[in-house]
Amino acid sequence: MDLNSDLAEGFGRWELSDDEALLRIVTSANVACGYHAGDATVIRQAVEQAAKLGVVVGAQVAYRDLAGFGRRFIDVPPVELANDVIYQIGALAGFARVAGTEVGYVKPHGALYNAIVHHVDQAAAVVDAVRAYDPSLAVLGLPGSEWLARAERAGLQVFREAFADRAYTPEGTLVSRREPGAVLHDPDVIADRCVRLAAGEPIKAIDGSDIKIDADSICVHGDSPGAVAIAEAVRDRLVAGGVTLAPFVTRGA
Amino acid sequence: MDLNSDLAEGFGRWELSDDEALLRIVTSANVACGYHAGDATVIRQAVEQAAKLGVVVGAQVAYRDLAGFGRRFIDVPPVELANDVIYQIGALAGFARVAGTEVGYVKPHGALYNAIVHHVDQAAAVVDAVRAYDPSLAVLGLPGSEWLARAERAGLQVFREAFADRAYTPEGTLVSRREPGAVLHDPDVIADRCVRLAAGEPIKAIDGSDIKIDADSICVHGDSPGAVAIAEAVRDRLVAGGVTLAPFVTRGA
Amino acid sequence: MDLNSDLAEGFGRWELSDDEALLRIVTSANVACGYHAGDATVIRQAVEQAAKLGVVVGAQVAYRDLAGFGRRFIDVPPVELANDVIYQIGALAGFARVAGTEVGYVKPHGALYNAIVHHVDQAAAVVDAVRAYDPSLAVLGLPGSEWLARAERAGLQVFREAFADRAYTPEGTLVSRREPGAVLHDPDVIADRCVRLAAGEPIKAIDGSDIKIDADSICVHGDSPGAVAIAEAVRDRLVAGGVTLAPFVTRGA
Amino acid sequence: MDLNSDLAEGFGRWELSDDEALLRIVTSANVACGYHAGDATVIRQAVEQAAKLGVVVGAQVAYRDLAGFGRRFIDVPPVELANDVIYQIGALAGFARVAGTEVGYVKPHGALYNAIVHHVDQAAAVVDAVRAYDPSLAVLGLPGSEWLARAERAGLQVFREAFADRAYTPEGTLVSRREPGAVLHDPDVIADRCVRLAAGEPIKAIDGSDIKIDADSICVHGDSPGAVAIAEAVRDRLVAGGVTLAPFVTRGA
Repeated sequence: MDLNSDLAEGFGRWELSDDEALLRIVTSANVACGYHAGDATVIRQAVEQAAKLGVVVGAQVAYRDLAGFGRRFIDVPPVELANDVIYQIGALAGFARVAGTEVGYVKPHGALYNAIVHHVDQAAAVVDAVRAYDPSLAVLGLPGSEWLARAERAGLQVFREAFADRAYTPEGTLVSRREPGAVLHDPDVIADRCVRLAAGEPIKAIDGSDIKIDADSICVHGDSPGAVAIAEAVRDRLVAGGVTLAPFVTRGA
Repeated sequence: MDLNSDLAEGFGRWELSDDEALLRIVTSANVACGYHAGDATVIRQAVEQAAKLGVVVGAQVAYRDLAGFGRRFIDVPPVELANDVIYQIGALAGFARVAGTEVGYVKPHGALYNAIVHHVDQAAAVVDAVRAYDPSLAVLGLPGSEWLARAERAGLQVFREAFADRAYTPEGTLVSRREPGAVLHDPDVIADRCVRLAAGEPIKAIDGSDIKIDADSICVHGDSPGAVAIAEAVRDRLVAGGVTLAPFVTRGA
Repeated sequence: MDLNSDLAEGFGRWELSDDEALLRIVTSANVACGYHAGDATVIRQAVEQAAKLGVVVGAQVAYRDLAGFGRRFIDVPPVELANDVIYQIGALAGFARVAGTEVGYVKPHGALYNAIVHHVDQAAAVVDAVRAYDPSLAVLGLPGSEWLARAERAGLQVFREAFADRAYTPEGTLVSRREPGAVLHDPDVIADRCVRLAAGEPIKAIDGSDIKIDADSICVHGDSPGAVAIAEAVRDRLVAGGVTLAPFVTRGA
Repeated sequence: MDLNSDLAEGFGRWELSDDEALLRIVTSANVACGYHAGDATVIRQAVEQAAKLGVVVGAQVAYRDLAGFGRRFIDVPPVELANDVIYQIGALAGFARVAGTEVGYVKPHGALYNAIVHHVDQAAAVVDAVRAYDPSLAVLGLPGSEWLARAERAGLQVFREAFADRAYTPEGTLVSRREPGAVLHDPDVIADRCVRLAAGEPIKAIDGSDIKIDADSICVHGDSPGAVAIAEAVRDRLVAGGVTLAPFVTRGA
């Protein structure tokens, strides 16, 4: 099982995730690329530390929206969205090159992540962008989403993730952050879910029903209070349960 | 002799240079990278057309200042400036890759261009960034500038440019755009200067004195009225005078 | 009848509308406030010239999206949208104060304009913002839109506009700019529509059917080729037809 | 004596100062206006709470530089800088109006604050902007600075501030944040300095020499670790020492 987390999500004076601590916990790092967060300096620091620690670097591509942290759907025309995705992957790849590593995968962020679960044209745009940049790149996304299905048909390597600290609808999509109960906070509950996910067992949806999430990676967050403690708890519980933690791709590892 | 011009300097709804026309005139294209101008779509279009036409693509790196079009000195700490430069080269390199070409050189823009003529720390930062990204990359700049001297000592390939339509001080630096007479507008005068530059003959400084500018490339602008006509006049006069136009680097050509 | 046009839609180095010419044609100026276009300098120039010419200044409020020129729907939470609208009105009001005039009305721009024709929560947010800022402010919008209905119920002065150069659906909404035929270009056709609008006669929808648009103002655009010529043609035809041109509000006139 | 602090310095997802706590400590709030920090929502919240608590709201105007948090000198042409200042005061004034208060004063931020200690043209631009907006507005700045002298000559109400937690040069200017020892961290040391400042006694410059700072207000910071505790210590020590805390202007109080 892989553990991934969002990193480099500060901007200038503003810090967010504790990148140094998270990079000692996760096996894959979704590095912000400057569109929703991440200035050049915080990106470089995260990528260089990731390279040193053998953590795989992924491009966390997003809508161009610093003010909204990429969490607001934007009706970007697909051609422009594809170009925005290429820009972000390229920018990150520059730092990967400088750090002696490579971009291993692409993971959309926030509202883009949610939109391309069902938005056909934007999903196609993201797939087109990744293929145009490098058809051997892997992508990471929500199981059952429009964009992962398209990515698979387009010949990209596809990996599926589950969220340790987010509530699910009975249909297996994420409960919107604007809804109550969308984010879980109890480290024990979160770690329990992860152990079940790693074992291929069902977890509880927000309505109490059982849902089965097939996951190659578990996402732990680094932008909430106590994030590092929760991520550590998840890692410790998985390791204690005999789960081997390793990146889902080898490129850049 | 090489002819270079600034391209992809629109942003979203706003257009600036006539990229399509200029790419049929120049041999090297300084493509904006998003910091002073250039959104992902206008960059991609410029790079793809350049690749088709055999025009070499260069990274026109700048201060992060869309509102000021990169024309205002910013006292960016050198470490951050170096990272900003890497970010921009990487972003452009992504589009070069998609278009089947490579970034051939780096040319700083506007106030950064002027600052590193003499600003030691920022000059060193730009050199460090280019070397960190790729020590085999070429750089293009003002003859006699601090940053070209450093780049040369650092082992980078160094090329010098002259400006077809800008007035020079007797010391061989550019007259600031805020000064009267800084920009020339007469196509004949401009073309004459280019012929002299290509022949290695002196040109007139703003005070009427003769100065000698050693140049591997002549910069023609695309953001002033009649820019395309001037650039065409320059090209035609050079060709008519027996000057062979060719990129100063072969990478990406 | 009032003639309104979008002004101050440049940004830094990038120019767009010919504000000087348009201010000699229209009676109300929708001044960009910095979110989709308009830096402080272009705003100040437009407002000062408007004040001198007796043209009423309106706040052209928009989504925060320079890269998209405010033409892309953004799912901004209503509370934040209301605050964004207040910010923009306030910024413009500062320049109005300096120029010795006042903000006379509010007109949403682009995708926000289109969204609040039907988006209940965003429509309410814009109404809330205007009321919070000044309940005696007028608003200008599409007849039949959700937001104008709400604004009227909330006690705001409501004015309705028609578009000289945009195609209408049979339902009286604007055809999206992404559709073919959305923008009219023939000055005679456009001027004819305006005369019919001013006379209270029906015009042709995109499918050829007749629709009746009740309008207190006609919007002429300044960001398309030949915009000034078209706007002049509209003005001349209206005046020749005996229509008196005057602002729909007196505040700031 | 007045206590002032910088507020509303978050941006979107990123939080910085603990505005709620600081507004219970200070008598004047320097509210960020969106150029170096401060989105519309964080500004509105700060202004509304300030209005409720009787804290005077000041416009913390800055260079347009979110990525640099306004801490990098930008060589903005004076005409544009003046317009940028008007834009920011106006935007803040909109929220003041909504909250039933007024902007009481203007305080430049960061690199602009430092530049106009000596940069004649930028100092004049800020003075011009404040006068153009409202000649009865007060300004707050460094004693002995170019801009305060100009503001006074221009007829503006001028107030001088001292910094509780910043080291001074023997000349009475602030030691740059890029220098070691520029920021003090010990609450006791800081509170002692404040008591001395309030009593009109000299404090120690960074070289150990005594300097006398005439101050109408003491600035406490809210963006460093332990900021609230330090600000509380300062307030408590001043009150315990018999100093009456009150805003230096009455407008908006």
